[in-house]
Amino acid sequence: MTRVLLTGFTPFEGSDVNPSWQAVQAVAADPPPGVDVVTAELPCVFGEALDALRTAVTEADPEVVVCVGQAGGRPDVTVERVAINVDDARIPDNAGAQPIDEPIVEGGPAAYFTNLPLKACVTAVREAGLPASVSQTAGTFVCNHVFYGLMHLLATERPAARGGFVHIPYAPEQVTDKGEPSLPVGAAAEALRVIMVTAAGRTDDIKAVGGATH
Amino acid sequence: MTRVLLTGFTPFEGSDVNPSWQAVQAVAADPPPGVDVVTAELPCVFGEALDALRTAVTEADPEVVVCVGQAGGRPDVTVERVAINVDDARIPDNAGAQPIDEPIVEGGPAAYFTNLPLKACVTAVREAGLPASVSQTAGTFVCNHVFYGLMHLLATERPAARGGFVHIPYAPEQVTDKGEPSLPVGAAAEALRVIMVTAAGRTDDIKAVGGATH
Amino acid sequence: MTRVLLTGFTPFEGSDVNPSWQAVQAVAADPPPGVDVVTAELPCVFGEALDALRTAVTEADPEVVVCVGQAGGRPDVTVERVAINVDDARIPDNAGAQPIDEPIVEGGPAAYFTNLPLKACVTAVREAGLPASVSQTAGTFVCNHVFYGLMHLLATERPAARGGFVHIPYAPEQVTDKGEPSLPVGAAAEALRVIMVTAAGRTDDIKAVGGATH
Amino acid sequence: MTRVLLTGFTPFEGSDVNPSWQAVQAVAADPPPGVDVVTAELPCVFGEALDALRTAVTEADPEVVVCVGQAGGRPDVTVERVAINVDDARIPDNAGAQPIDEPIVEGGPAAYFTNLPLKACVTAVREAGLPASVSQTAGTFVCNHVFYGLMHLLATERPAARGGFVHIPYAPEQVTDKGEPSLPVGAAAEALRVIMVTAAGRTDDIKAVGGATH
Repeated sequence: MTRVLLTGFTPFEGSDVNPSWQAVQAVAADPPPGVDVVTAELPCVFGEALDALRTAVTEADPEVVVCVGQAGGRPDVTVERVAINVDDARIPDNAGAQPIDEPIVEGGPAAYFTNLPLKACVTAVREAGLPASVSQTAGTFVCNHVFYGLMHLLATERPAARGGFVHIPYAPEQVTDKGEPSLPVGAAAEALRVIMVTAAGRTDDIKAVGGATH
Repeated sequence: MTRVLLTGFTPFEGSDVNPSWQAVQAVAADPPPGVDVVTAELPCVFGEALDALRTAVTEADPEVVVCVGQAGGRPDVTVERVAINVDDARIPDNAGAQPIDEPIVEGGPAAYFTNLPLKACVTAVREAGLPASVSQTAGTFVCNHVFYGLMHLLATERPAARGGFVHIPYAPEQVTDKGEPSLPVGAAAEALRVIMVTAAGRTDDIKAVGGATH
Repeated sequence: MTRVLLTGFTPFEGSDVNPSWQAVQAVAADPPPGVDVVTAELPCVFGEALDALRTAVTEADPEVVVCVGQAGGRPDVTVERVAINVDDARIPDNAGAQPIDEPIVEGGPAAYFTNLPLKACVTAVREAGLPASVSQTAGTFVCNHVFYGLMHLLATERPAARGGFVHIPYAPEQVTDKGEPSLPVGAAAEALRVIMVTAAGRTDDIKAVGGATH
Repeated sequence: MTRVLLTGFTPFEGSDVNPSWQAVQAVAADPPPGVDVVTAELPCVFGEALDALRTAVTEADPEVVVCVGQAGGRPDVTVERVAINVDDARIPDNAGAQPIDEPIVEGGPAAYFTNLPLKACVTAVREAGLPASVSQTAGTFVCNHVFYGLMHLLATERPAARGGFVHIPYAPEQVTDKGEPSLPVGAAAEALRVIMVTAAGRTDDIKAVGGATH
């Protein structure tokens, strides 16, 4: 059994739900074989989200951490490649803070790459019949903040653990009248199961096309 | 019981499946209350599709006809407002024909509006938690061809019957590596059930915003 | 010389400018050879727009009428194929009216096709190095209202005249921080010149691919 | 006078032109006040592009370097925030190479942030009436390769110089029948002039909203 910490977020930007936490709960209720799932809900608040993540990592002592967030407007499940050392909020977080171009970790490296098998995860989700791709940016809001904070925590304090970030689309019920792409929470949960099993099962990645020209 | 004829299409443009026929079959296997569902699969071929539709209408003698097609790239279930009297194929149909700017019915009216309750159907699907909207164009390919042919058939030979056209998104398994929006067949089928019940239950429409500035 | 009436709209939806009227003025200031251009600015108001159009048509006595509107979000110049007999406003017009599913002309035909050479116009704009395509819907707001009213006026009172509708993108200065496609007014004006010359020069159309699957 | 090296790319992916080089040439032909412009055309080839960039930097001895590339599909001028240390080609480069997940500089930092005033440049372009935004990813193809290589070169060998990367949209003539956003080369060139003047004129940035939630 591989112990995996799986995190989701509280709702933000006026929404009543956040499908990331719904999908995480669905995975916990029906975990994939070979994986011991521990979950945590992170507040959509700069700073506090990382405090909650640190607590969860300390308590769970996981071998793999997968943080999950909502990427409204994206049509597929995206596995993030890189976290960058900047908070630059387009909207205020749930505590009203809106940092502009501030480092997440003063003096930290400009970026961290995920050390989950990026292409293997994307390929496995596709083979399960669900839409997925590599994302080259996790944005500059609380999702990237958590992703960078996670990778910095692992790099500096838990080098044996591995981590990454997955963005999922809106759930259909969030966009009934919005004309935006969606994916049901159950499908997103299934993608997360596949990613967890893939990430737990291998440390190296496969060679597969998945870049972006821009 | 209201007798409803529900049609889907064969696959086209190189795809192995057409979610419209899959969703129609799912509805037939688990029909909504108060509706007697009859189904037909139409070939994605100009002319032949209308022959098959006429046969199905003759055999089923339906009170309501809902034709369903795939609208790859659309993120939600769209109920079509209007069918126009032109075939203008961007790609060849399944028999290799590619008509350009030809009338569907020589001397027929320029267009027919659906006589299903357009806004009531869209509203009901949204209330069921699924994404839906009014579409102002069914295109100029076989879907519009069938929609126009249906409305012409009803107008000229079966004035007591009512009809309309619904476009559904790609299924997720069609676009695993495409970066396109999708909706699972089960969700599309549920939307069709809601539309059928709504269309069977009322002939007038509600007043609801659903237009487009362009 | 062919006399062409070219119309644009006043600004709407809170914008300070409407590139349709700016482009029309640019054409009038520098008209193409062989065309006698008369212009009119139409209010973005249901009903009043058609009153103004009728006045302009009566005064100008044109052989060809090209009405132009802004289609915010579209990336290219679109020549509209069909006008439908419905007002269904997503937003209020400039007088605060927001009709829902009302006919433009009570008892009028469901739709009119443009009788300008649709594909020839699109092809000519492309050959001039500018992006263009056929549009299968002019929406259900004041643009479609004017287009339908124009075609009804010509069909019922001026059968020798021909008419159509062209949508142009936002101007760049309208979307500096919006992430929306745009086309400079000068380029839109050049496209209009090409369309006017093409429409003045031929009544039949060419056979060219330009339909939509949905 | 500030000496600025401005680079564009050769055409790629089957295109006949690359608007980045066309825009760079237009700037060189009509440079903005206060700036001494030197230009170079870089091949769209991994490795060779950086060789050409190094040669150009050595010869020009610039205070500021702005590399420019085409971002087909983007509607506005984007100033890139960050370059990441990976080559991951979705398509082969002009020499047929298609590296997958390989570092640009073995042992180099995961990323470099631009040290041009990102928000000030975006704001200045908008104030000039042209559409612009911050981009959080330059992709993983030759554009990012050059951007990362540039920042690494400046960081390790020319710490007094500053650099960045700007993506521009397709030119209209590239997408006449594509339904893709575009911006004329002349407008892109004007945006580059504004960026050069802004970058030459200040080293600190302004505080302005410009992040992305994902």
